[in-house]
Amino acid sequence: MVMMTTPPEAPPQLPAKPVRESQAIYTELTLPNDANSLGTLFGGKLMQCVDLCAAIAAVRHARCAVVTASVDQLTFLQPVKIGQLVILKSSVNRVFRTSMEVGVKVWVEDLASGEVKHVSSAYLTFVALDKDRQRIPIGPVTPETEDEIRRYEHAGHRREVRLQMREAMKK
Amino acid sequence: MVMMTTPPEAPPQLPAKPVRESQAIYTELTLPNDANSLGTLFGGKLMQCVDLCAAIAAVRHARCAVVTASVDQLTFLQPVKIGQLVILKSSVNRVFRTSMEVGVKVWVEDLASGEVKHVSSAYLTFVALDKDRQRIPIGPVTPETEDEIRRYEHAGHRREVRLQMREAMKK
Amino acid sequence: MVMMTTPPEAPPQLPAKPVRESQAIYTELTLPNDANSLGTLFGGKLMQCVDLCAAIAAVRHARCAVVTASVDQLTFLQPVKIGQLVILKSSVNRVFRTSMEVGVKVWVEDLASGEVKHVSSAYLTFVALDKDRQRIPIGPVTPETEDEIRRYEHAGHRREVRLQMREAMKK
Amino acid sequence: MVMMTTPPEAPPQLPAKPVRESQAIYTELTLPNDANSLGTLFGGKLMQCVDLCAAIAAVRHARCAVVTASVDQLTFLQPVKIGQLVILKSSVNRVFRTSMEVGVKVWVEDLASGEVKHVSSAYLTFVALDKDRQRIPIGPVTPETEDEIRRYEHAGHRREVRLQMREAMKK
Amino acid sequence: MVMMTTPPEAPPQLPAKPVRESQAIYTELTLPNDANSLGTLFGGKLMQCVDLCAAIAAVRHARCAVVTASVDQLTFLQPVKIGQLVILKSSVNRVFRTSMEVGVKVWVEDLASGEVKHVSSAYLTFVALDKDRQRIPIGPVTPETEDEIRRYEHAGHRREVRLQMREAMKK
Amino acid sequence: MVMMTTPPEAPPQLPAKPVRESQAIYTELTLPNDANSLGTLFGGKLMQCVDLCAAIAAVRHARCAVVTASVDQLTFLQPVKIGQLVILKSSVNRVFRTSMEVGVKVWVEDLASGEVKHVSSAYLTFVALDKDRQRIPIGPVTPETEDEIRRYEHAGHRREVRLQMREAMKK
Repeated sequence: MVMMTTPPEAPPQLPAKPVRESQAIYTELTLPNDANSLGTLFGGKLMQCVDLCAAIAAVRHARCAVVTASVDQLTFLQPVKIGQLVILKSSVNRVFRTSMEVGVKVWVEDLASGEVKHVSSAYLTFVALDKDRQRIPIGPVTPETEDEIRRYEHAGHRREVRLQMREAMKK
Repeated sequence: MVMMTTPPEAPPQLPAKPVRESQAIYTELTLPNDANSLGTLFGGKLMQCVDLCAAIAAVRHARCAVVTASVDQLTFLQPVKIGQLVILKSSVNRVFRTSMEVGVKVWVEDLASGEVKHVSSAYLTFVALDKDRQRIPIGPVTPETEDEIRRYEHAGHRREVRLQMREAMKK
Repeated sequence: MVMMTTPPEAPPQLPAKPVRESQAIYTELTLPNDANSLGTLFGGKLMQCVDLCAAIAAVRHARCAVVTASVDQLTFLQPVKIGQLVILKSSVNRVFRTSMEVGVKVWVEDLASGEVKHVSSAYLTFVALDKDRQRIPIGPVTPETEDEIRRYEHAGHRREVRLQMREAMKK
Repeated sequence: MVMMTTPPEAPPQLPAKPVRESQAIYTELTLPNDANSLGTLFGGKLMQCVDLCAAIAAVRHARCAVVTASVDQLTFLQPVKIGQLVILKSSVNRVFRTSMEVGVKVWVEDLASGEVKHVSSAYLTFVALDKDRQRIPIGPVTPETEDEIRRYEHAGHRREVRLQMREAMKK
Repeated sequence: MVMMTTPPEAPPQLPAKPVRESQAIYTELTLPNDANSLGTLFGGKLMQCVDLCAAIAAVRHARCAVVTASVDQLTFLQPVKIGQLVILKSSVNRVFRTSMEVGVKVWVEDLASGEVKHVSSAYLTFVALDKDRQRIPIGPVTPETEDEIRRYEHAGHRREVRLQMREAMKK
Repeated sequence: MVMMTTPPEAPPQLPAKPVRESQAIYTELTLPNDANSLGTLFGGKLMQCVDLCAAIAAVRHARCAVVTASVDQLTFLQPVKIGQLVILKSSVNRVFRTSMEVGVKVWVEDLASGEVKHVSSAYLTFVALDKDRQRIPIGPVTPETEDEIRRYEHAGHRREVRLQMREAMKK
């Protein structure tokens, strides 16, 4: 069992933004060079799209330079075929003072049939940097819908587990 | 606290291979197109290299088609400058019946100065597939050095935490 | 003055789809390799994105293979800076039996400031092909909003002018 | 019917150059990543080559920075197969004070058979810019051959139609 | 001193072609990703263009599949700046039964100034293959101009030196 | 017969480094875009990897900017299939005052079977440059193993032949 402690909050003096204001959509058509030996999309190519779509939401929220601090979880549910359209949507789930968790959901659309499938989900942590590349505080994000509130809470949980894991791995 | 249960083992009837037999080295020179707005390497580009280097170790161990099932953790410790040489090393840490954890460590070498820095570490899970894209058992990996044994044990721990997290997130 | 004749209509026996069902959004982050000698985006790179976004709407409408028959007009209004996010939206404006006009509007978002600008507009003609690469009829598109109706009418006008131009150029 | 008015001329005080002095040849071998779902060349890839070849002629004529203002017409006559060699030739057709029309003709050569086919024709408008990115006058181009004179006249005609179209579309 | 022996001739029963029938021109605009740490073109990028331009002449001469057997000499005379246009010209210098020497000369054009410089020269050997990837005889090439005759003779000389070198290196 | 003269030596006042200190490994996974019409790797793509791997050894030896002066010999022994892993190893064979010969050996690993084959060998000459792009002296390299000593001697031989060839070709 993982014990929950209270995660650090985004600095309250910075203005809060609702989740929807920074959500991003990114699209990519998969090409022959992106295929692994099975003729489906390389995991690494999808990771690259995930990072890019997440970074767009992060920078829209913080409106300053951001860098990826970690990929906390990225799950591949289904293979993607070359020629399919990859559609990614990202949201800032929660801000923790100088870092923020961004969630990304990925679908593919088979353009010939119109069929759309959920193929991947991911959580990444970004930090915001000033011009001297020093970490700076990020304004809070306001979850509004039920889904956004659930993701806000899960983001806190995930952060706790990561910190405990890091401790445990030092032994 | 995370409780450890016994993870599933690689099928003992398949021949075991030592870790060193499948370890992989991958190198990449970073180019201007790989730069984010800060002039350092996009996280997504490094993820792509990490996935590729991990896949080489996975396929060398299993000698069949493998696909990335998840990125369980990927941490960026330092920014990479464009023009630096990225050097990645990957090892199969542990096999769990039809999946295996692969660890990747990433350094950059500044070619002008010769300075080498550790910039990233990652753990990914791969599954092995037969010609009909069905999951198949993977032979065990034998850790030999102290480091390999420690990574073998940590891999079991990480797997437990992931499974508990997945349960917790369903609520 | 250009005289309007009645353009051929989409075959009425094929089911009609509203414009909104096939509209597409495509996004692209501009990279250093896409820069011309002024440090702004190559026209050709934007054309490539325009063609791709238009093709997605065309294939979503026809749900079969489509190929670009012509770019009828593509205007660049403002330069795009490298590092800006290009956002494209496309709609099937009108169907003419075996061809269709697709309109594309292009914006850039400056991620640092959040500023969004309209940078380009384009009209392209696509044809639909069967498995033997023969042209096949395309079902009609139904304009619903005021904008869609205006674009439907303009599409007919543009087609007339193109045909008259082609005649005039033969002399 | 399109009525012809007299288009603006290139500034006569700037030195004139014959068309042949700025004509350009560009070549490109088509690769698997350039293929659409039919296994033939993406329209967008050909557009990119067309823009590049046209820009080379434009900059050779003006010997200053140029940017694409519009693609006025680009027609695809035949599909291009992957592996074929694309050969493009461009000429400055006419100068209109601060803009110029460039024509591009595109062939493919099937390297195995040696067969050459005309696959596309295009007209683009470029403008010339000074160091502050302000539009500057362009010296006249002198058509010498019969073909060059015909293209010079057609370029004036096309410009008229574009201007009338723009007016008509405002309504 | 290198002693000249008589090199093997192209099979006389196959039809001869003049050099000019297979000469090729290839062009490439250099982009930021092609730059080394000095901001000039990577040698490897130029090699890739040289190989491609040489292969076009080789396949035009043999009109069958060809592969590069060796780069016998490739000299870089001047650095190429990013943004410059690379122009390559290739000729089949001589045929030796189942192989042929192709010469490539490379210039860059600075598009802003119009200045053209000779930056590289290369000699490559290609072999022709049938559908089973077996080497097949290649018809002779007929040098016509003084330059072509000189290159024909030098090609024979270069081949001798290569063979003697190979022998000497075995010791 | 080629007569050996004594080649210029690396400046003895600069510190010598053993060969092993600058040896480099480079890896590349071959992708569909790298395929020629036979479905095997383009020669030019392999040349690009060879140049890059050689440059890494050269810069590690000289620890300053280096550029490729020539490819003296590059032989393709076997075709490389797309999807195979290319593994390159490079060593500085010998230093000649302001230039150095770098040797590269290339293998491919078929990841499915684990089979490794030697596919190419190459010798390149690099020069070292200061900040004003002037050639500067390079410290000597110390061959230690039997192979390194043999390559050191052959490098001197190859240099002689190149110089004599250059003379002979002037006639």
